[in-house]
Amino acid sequence: MSSEETKQTTAPGEAQTQAPAAEQTQAPAPAEELNPDGTPLSDKQRRKRAEKAEKERIKAEKAARLAAEQAARQAAEVDYATENYGPLPMNQSQEHTNRQLFAIEDIHPDKDGQPITLVARLQTSRAPSAKLVFFNLRQSMQCVQATMAVTPEKISRQMTKWAASVTPESLVLIEGTISKVPKPIESPSVTIKDAEVKISKMFVQVPVTWEGQIPFYVDDATRSDAEIEASQNTPRPLPPIALDTRLDNRVLDLRTPTNQAIFRLNHGVCKLFREFLENNGFIEIHTPKLQGAATESGASVFKVDYFKGKAFLAQSPQLGKQMAISADFGRVYEIGPVFRAEDSNTHRHMTEFTGLDLEMAFQDHYHEVVDLLNQLFMFIFSELPKRYATEIATIRRQFPAEEFLVPEKPVRLDFKEGVQMLRDAGYDINDLDDLSTETERALGKLVRDKYHTDFYALDKFPLDIRPFYTMPDPKDNRYSNSYDFFMRGQEILSGAQRVHDAKFLEERLAAANIPVSAMKHYVDAFRLGTPPHAGGGIGLERVVMLYLGLGNIRRASMFPRDPKRLEP
Amino acid sequence: MSSEETKQTTAPGEAQTQAPAAEQTQAPAPAEELNPDGTPLSDKQRRKRAEKAEKERIKAEKAARLAAEQAARQAAEVDYATENYGPLPMNQSQEHTNRQLFAIEDIHPDKDGQPITLVARLQTSRAPSAKLVFFNLRQSMQCVQATMAVTPEKISRQMTKWAASVTPESLVLIEGTISKVPKPIESPSVTIKDAEVKISKMFVQVPVTWEGQIPFYVDDATRSDAEIEASQNTPRPLPPIALDTRLDNRVLDLRTPTNQAIFRLNHGVCKLFREFLENNGFIEIHTPKLQGAATESGASVFKVDYFKGKAFLAQSPQLGKQMAISADFGRVYEIGPVFRAEDSNTHRHMTEFTGLDLEMAFQDHYHEVVDLLNQLFMFIFSELPKRYATEIATIRRQFPAEEFLVPEKPVRLDFKEGVQMLRDAGYDINDLDDLSTETERALGKLVRDKYHTDFYALDKFPLDIRPFYTMPDPKDNRYSNSYDFFMRGQEILSGAQRVHDAKFLEERLAAANIPVSAMKHYVDAFRLGTPPHAGGGIGLERVVMLYLGLGNIRRASMFPRDPKRLEP
Repeated sequence: MSSEETKQTTAPGEAQTQAPAAEQTQAPAPAEELNPDGTPLSDKQRRKRAEKAEKERIKAEKAARLAAEQAARQAAEVDYATENYGPLPMNQSQEHTNRQLFAIEDIHPDKDGQPITLVARLQTSRAPSAKLVFFNLRQSMQCVQATMAVTPEKISRQMTKWAASVTPESLVLIEGTISKVPKPIESPSVTIKDAEVKISKMFVQVPVTWEGQIPFYVDDATRSDAEIEASQNTPRPLPPIALDTRLDNRVLDLRTPTNQAIFRLNHGVCKLFREFLENNGFIEIHTPKLQGAATESGASVFKVDYFKGKAFLAQSPQLGKQMAISADFGRVYEIGPVFRAEDSNTHRHMTEFTGLDLEMAFQDHYHEVVDLLNQLFMFIFSELPKRYATEIATIRRQFPAEEFLVPEKPVRLDFKEGVQMLRDAGYDINDLDDLSTETERALGKLVRDKYHTDFYALDKFPLDIRPFYTMPDPKDNRYSNSYDFFMRGQEILSGAQRVHDAKFLEERLAAANIPVSAMKHYVDAFRLGTPPHAGGGIGLERVVMLYLGLGNIRRASMFPRDPKRLEP
Repeated sequence: MSSEETKQTTAPGEAQTQAPAAEQTQAPAPAEELNPDGTPLSDKQRRKRAEKAEKERIKAEKAARLAAEQAARQAAEVDYATENYGPLPMNQSQEHTNRQLFAIEDIHPDKDGQPITLVARLQTSRAPSAKLVFFNLRQSMQCVQATMAVTPEKISRQMTKWAASVTPESLVLIEGTISKVPKPIESPSVTIKDAEVKISKMFVQVPVTWEGQIPFYVDDATRSDAEIEASQNTPRPLPPIALDTRLDNRVLDLRTPTNQAIFRLNHGVCKLFREFLENNGFIEIHTPKLQGAATESGASVFKVDYFKGKAFLAQSPQLGKQMAISADFGRVYEIGPVFRAEDSNTHRHMTEFTGLDLEMAFQDHYHEVVDLLNQLFMFIFSELPKRYATEIATIRRQFPAEEFLVPEKPVRLDFKEGVQMLRDAGYDINDLDDLSTETERALGKLVRDKYHTDFYALDKFPLDIRPFYTMPDPKDNRYSNSYDFFMRGQEILSGAQRVHDAKFLEERLAAANIPVSAMKHYVDAFRLGTPPHAGGGIGLERVVMLYLGLGNIRRASMFPRDPKRLEP
């Protein structure tokens, strides 16, 4: 392997500099010019000795001169590699280098010997000797091993010493060659297993200027719980890093390959959501987050100082998207922030999250919308593993999870059936009560056992536990035309057929003790004739958390917000 | 034409009901049974008279019976067409009809005689006689003429009377046949010019229940200023509808074909923005709108009650997207709401708008980002007319505008050059002052004249008029690596290379008198090493307003928010 080769090539150089030439310059004293038997030296002997001494003197002088030069060179930090390393000036767009930069993921043993230039994070470094340094270099989800070894003329000892001292997480500009390795690199951090980079030049493009040690190493932050636990009785136990420490230093935490993958998947869910809906005639809308009234339910709405008055942050795009339906847009969606002023400090609540909302005028029956939602999710679940295989594999290394079970045909159960399944399993629940987090999970497990799916819809919720704008079931008005969708036994979508008839809406508002005047603009939209419609809101971060089994919704939000966290 | 045909078929029905049979039932008195010369009648004469009287009596009785029946039928509102019209019950998803609904845009004279079913808005109706009604039926941007004429057995006079009374904007379910028309329909409201629908059945699916007359008719709200002006000296002057009236009744206003098109184009700009960026390696992120500190500039930030503390609404995703760059996401974009607490009541300011934001790590020079932005806009401008030709044509009918000039090669001018062009044109301005709205427009005109473009970039703005995080120009630090993009002489994008070096950022903060402590998390992100990067924020509604020449940004926002408007 390369480390052996480089040790051999550096050894002679090392021997040279260690030869202390000064010791050989002390010539014998003239007083002792006798033969070993005590007789004086002959003239010839004297001449020869003098000649020898002169030669030695000349030799010694030369050696002394060389040694002095060497010492001076070292003392003045002059080295032969100064052009090949060091910090770069701050980029102010001084010039166009038109350099061709290489991506780590394109490094392959087939390219053995190819010279490359790359910019990467210096993830870790390790110097087994003063003449050799190993690095892990990272770009997003990919990591490659690189070596720097002292060589005459190109890489000096000063250069390796400097390189070994570069702070992890600095951005480095590397020149080197791709080098095939004879056996796979074992380090779990390295993703390129069968090739490495032999460094010839290294510059710090952007330094780390954190005071003291950085809060944690990205490498350590990428380990699974199992790896951390298994390491505790080894010489190098891995430090567990608490979620709060990560979130306090979120920029550093987001650099882990796991997080690089999570937020690519997060984008993937949005992309697939849009792709499916746009292929089905939906248009994207943007409804205002600043509202004149605390519309849906006053309790959990954030209040905003709005010039001399007050405004409220929308709890959902519900009103706006329904007005868009009344305005004949037919099928609309929105991806945007949703605000909840609920003091819930749980693994699945945030005060701000990303809502994937849609609303749709239907022809006859709200099940047209339920069917479309099922198709939407089936599309997302079938495309994610195809398009994001690398990302999912990267995440699974840190967060191993059971494969997400997708049914062949979507499963839709009535609320009543769910209640019966729970009762059959020994749960004591009332017909018209809402499910608790516990019974939701239990039902998820029962459905998984019976239908082999981690995804299903529960339909026909009791009317009284749904918002005032929910359409009652036409046959039994204790129930309603409303539904929730679940992933791994947790709710990810809530939706319903909405009351589209203004007179009936007024009745429902009265039943909910909400004065019509508080919702004038909303009710007015329905006085202008609104087609029958249904829709739903999906929590993006919940879908990502549950699909991947991340265990906490904050892991699926780039900069999460909860009652106790507003930064970074 | 159809109106002639229908008049002929309805005439007999009308004649029948008008025959007052009662007048013919008064038989002559027996006392007057003499011949005209005064002689008494012979037996034969008497018999004949009696027979004739009997016949007349029978005939009269029959007529009386028929008339009574007819009167009774009318009195009881019984008619032979009751199955063919009327209101439908409120849709509660009672049943699946599996009806095949037809789209107005698919109506074509080639399909003459084809029976169709459709659901549409009843836009206007007009009844030239009691037996004939004309309708304009609308679906989004399309409008077709439909006729209903009294026919025996199928369409009764009660039916036409009812149909003519249906409130405009009601949603109607129509059965009928497509009928070719001999010459194009002249009405400017009708988009299907060469065919109409002959109605056989009509039901109100959802009624309008607005108290009194609706605020305006969609048809009237679709007229251009020129049409309104030209109509003022005609028998039917068109009412001008103020923007505020429209916005107060935005749901109704959004139903105009013009608005249907504007918000499809609005979606189109977002779609093209994403399409280009995703093809260029960008990923979508969602940064929090709730911020712990009034980050960019305290003055124009909305304050939020956040549990027992305070939060602030993000003025832009600036900090979040820069942190994402520091976190190695390389190229990121976000489409989301942006909040500005500025008390600006102008045609181009809103307190909440949709930001199209992007940020990108570059290799050498921020012009890599400027070039990408130019390519992005060139892509949008080249695709919009291809993909949204119908929408643009629909909008131009109400808002005629000069064609938006796109250059063959993007134009990028230095701020200095812009200043010189303005001076050459007689404007008295200082080197380092910002442009005013007036000089911006003037420069836009000068650039249009010189380069034949409505789109250009102004580069190298003076440093002092840009935010603290702007990178100074490396050659002349009175200027900076920052840029604005303009459409029709108005700013639509502002961007720059950002300071990515933590120490230099601290200097710049000090120069701007902002304490580092107020921006700890932001500065910390840079202490961890951040690649050189640049980006920009585009105002979606400004792009749409200026591309289309709408004159007011509120027309490009579905539910606009300004200092005086928080509803609907």
